[in-house]
Amino acid sequence: MSTSLNSPYHHGNLRQALLEAALIILQRDGEAGLGLRDIARAVGVSPAAPYRHFDSRAALLEALAVTGFQRFTAAMEDVAASPVPDKMMLMGKTYVLFALENANLFRLMFSAELKREGRPGLRMAADAAFDTLRHVSGGDVQAGRIAALAAWARVHGLAVLLLDGQIAIRAGEDTEALIAEVIGHL
Amino acid sequence: MSTSLNSPYHHGNLRQALLEAALIILQRDGEAGLGLRDIARAVGVSPAAPYRHFDSRAALLEALAVTGFQRFTAAMEDVAASPVPDKMMLMGKTYVLFALENANLFRLMFSAELKREGRPGLRMAADAAFDTLRHVSGGDVQAGRIAALAAWARVHGLAVLLLDGQIAIRAGEDTEALIAEVIGHL
Repeated sequence: MSTSLNSPYHHGNLRQALLEAALIILQRDGEAGLGLRDIARAVGVSPAAPYRHFDSRAALLEALAVTGFQRFTAAMEDVAASPVPDKMMLMGKTYVLFALENANLFRLMFSAELKREGRPGLRMAADAAFDTLRHVSGGDVQAGRIAALAAWARVHGLAVLLLDGQIAIRAGEDTEALIAEVIGHL
Repeated sequence: MSTSLNSPYHHGNLRQALLEAALIILQRDGEAGLGLRDIARAVGVSPAAPYRHFDSRAALLEALAVTGFQRFTAAMEDVAASPVPDKMMLMGKTYVLFALENANLFRLMFSAELKREGRPGLRMAADAAFDTLRHVSGGDVQAGRIAALAAWARVHGLAVLLLDGQIAIRAGEDTEALIAEVIGHL
């Protein structure tokens, strides 16, 4: 099969094209449905082509999680730059809505399996996200550790319980309003 | 292979024996390592024997999750009966330590896949656990919903972040003390 005639990918940044295709497949099918061959097919390159950029499926998953943390950090920087007075409320809502809108990416970002591999790129991206959270919540590095962990646990728990369908949303209830109420209560 | 000569299981409550073997395998190998054949082998009965009690792997997983919620509810009832003044702190610590000590069982109890199947037995066991949480936290059913969700999100988030290795425990740091500090801050 020709890669130049029928494919959506022609030239330029193959790595970026592979990542974008992988993000779409991840969001649609979940991590289990994600293989380097499927991504090659989606981009319209040979099955071997992805290996020029990702030496394994684990390397691809790491790159996706890093992309997730970069988007997450950008969303939190928007909160930091926002003129709203209650930044903690906006940060919490942004965190939970990011999780709900990027469900499988969020699960991958916080995957225990990926974390256990201890990949430096992922650790750096996660640390940068956590630093931004801490900056927005206004804590200094030393004294603020417990406060930051407490704030993180709150919003992460709400995100996970909603993602996993554990919190029953009542008929006619607005999820975003419920999120605001729960965060406001904290 | 004879089931009566070489097996640890001879007579009595086969369902209970299967569940106990399954809990051990679940805790050791995780949900992915759990099959009805392996459990039959562990108990020393024929591969078909588990089907007398569980018509599918999903039915076995549900029974395990129900067992988990029953143990969890019992732990929360101990908190309710305890004479300590700060029940919310004890409840939070009990929740997080239950998760850490029963990692794979806790993951199964809150599994999105199992939840999606909507099995009535699991829903009842989870509702009973949640009612106990609400009772301990002192909220009445109507006014207390947001407060209960907020308290739940806090401790669930801390449990999940610790389980998934996302919170860095510092060298020499005591996990239980860190849990108490984070819950105390909330």
